[in-house]
Amino acid sequence: MQLIDTVGRFTKTIESARAMGNSVGLVPTMGALHRGHLSLVERAARECDVVAVTIFVNPLQFGDPDDLAAYPRTLGADVAVAEAAGADVVFTPSDRQMYPDSAAAGGPQDMSGEPVGVHAGSLGRVLEGASRPGHFDGVATVIAKLFAMTGRCRAYFGEKDFQQLQVIRSLASRLSFPVDVVACATVREPDGLALSSRNARLSPDERTAATVLYRSLAAGAAAIAAGARRPAEVTSAMRAELGAEPLVTTDYAVAVGAEHLTPLPELAGAVRLLVAARCGPVRLIDNMEVII
Amino acid sequence: MQLIDTVGRFTKTIESARAMGNSVGLVPTMGALHRGHLSLVERAARECDVVAVTIFVNPLQFGDPDDLAAYPRTLGADVAVAEAAGADVVFTPSDRQMYPDSAAAGGPQDMSGEPVGVHAGSLGRVLEGASRPGHFDGVATVIAKLFAMTGRCRAYFGEKDFQQLQVIRSLASRLSFPVDVVACATVREPDGLALSSRNARLSPDERTAATVLYRSLAAGAAAIAAGARRPAEVTSAMRAELGAEPLVTTDYAVAVGAEHLTPLPELAGAVRLLVAARCGPVRLIDNMEVII
Repeated sequence: MQLIDTVGRFTKTIESARAMGNSVGLVPTMGALHRGHLSLVERAARECDVVAVTIFVNPLQFGDPDDLAAYPRTLGADVAVAEAAGADVVFTPSDRQMYPDSAAAGGPQDMSGEPVGVHAGSLGRVLEGASRPGHFDGVATVIAKLFAMTGRCRAYFGEKDFQQLQVIRSLASRLSFPVDVVACATVREPDGLALSSRNARLSPDERTAATVLYRSLAAGAAAIAAGARRPAEVTSAMRAELGAEPLVTTDYAVAVGAEHLTPLPELAGAVRLLVAARCGPVRLIDNMEVII
Repeated sequence: MQLIDTVGRFTKTIESARAMGNSVGLVPTMGALHRGHLSLVERAARECDVVAVTIFVNPLQFGDPDDLAAYPRTLGADVAVAEAAGADVVFTPSDRQMYPDSAAAGGPQDMSGEPVGVHAGSLGRVLEGASRPGHFDGVATVIAKLFAMTGRCRAYFGEKDFQQLQVIRSLASRLSFPVDVVACATVREPDGLALSSRNARLSPDERTAATVLYRSLAAGAAAIAAGARRPAEVTSAMRAELGAEPLVTTDYAVAVGAEHLTPLPELAGAVRLLVAARCGPVRLIDNMEVII
């Protein structure tokens, strides 16, 4: 396994691998790797000749400096588990490697004002984007950089961050990257809680309460199975579940079209149920597909 | 020479060329090729094993539909002269190939609202960007697509569109494309007029008057050579020259820092003189480097 920390060496290493006829799998992460991430690495290892895992806590996608500072960093353990799961390359760039002009990254004063970047468009402004302005522009910019460095590859993302997945699919298509975006099912605890690096910050009581997100999605899916087609009927069922849990404060609970995450007058086709809620110190999200 | 009109085949063709060990030169154009473009193709052919010329009138960078409609299109002649100048691949995608979701491109109704795209940041809002809102976002988006399709290459651009060149340099660096952006000197007529596809729309009198742009730059450079260091002194000399030509209306005449095109309190280091003016039916631009 090669551990690489510069953009130049990462790009050259991938190019050399490809020049020898290898297919490339890319698994972009922010570290704090859990079984959800490892399922992506394992799938990439089954489907590709060479697997690159990137670990970079991207400052551009954090609006709140406290949230950035609190984000768990477990680099030593991450490298070991990534290798065990099948990574051939682990790329761990510094902020300065990724954003050399940025004052925020500890670089020299940025003289250019607002730099060139990728914007996520309307898809980046709803749901998570509404409560985290600029978040998806930051995600789209860092993923565009990783796609540009890597070139043709299969890139693996979890469905847990479904809106992020849709932004990245749109990015790959709209900017003509020769990248196949591969969506991988959310990995859950036995009680339904979606794995997340943020779960580590929950108290035992909060950890128990957090399962209500999954129960809320299940209630929405059950309402649809029982014949509900008006979004308000479905979201009432979701909100009723969430409202019954005093340790959790609902942010949103929606039933929308899966591709653009936009409201539908009547549910049909590929529908996505999405919830976000605060639970103690953290904000949790989850989602579920329902095909009607 | 291969003539290619789909994104998929273009990307595969470039990848095959690279897999055989060839270096790749990219010359993005909007067609209406003149000797300025051909100098880029010829240089690319001297420096690279395989040269791809792209011809695409990018609707995303035109704010004014009339300007888009009036842009000269001479595809048959372009392909012939590109091949003669050394192109191995000529890529001529349709609007629908480049922007399959866009209603403007004649595609199906875009359901996603504002799509993912690249924004040029502050550099895209001054000078040309001030009179053409969104223009450099459109340029940055189409060039990002071409860079994503092409992968590692040397990409050749003329200094005539200097602000565009700086946006593209910033794009390549900020988005980590493995692309060396190569700046090529402006090709001029014997009387100093910079070659431009738009020159064809000038009447004989306007064509004569248009040389005042170059004379204005020369007057600015002469003022600096004579010791002027305050931008206002230099731009007065430039404006005086432009003002003496009744067929030309000045849009801007500036002396700025070359990298970010931002005002300097006192001229020093790499300075760029830039002018824009209307001459009959067209808007012309030109620029000159002065190193102090």
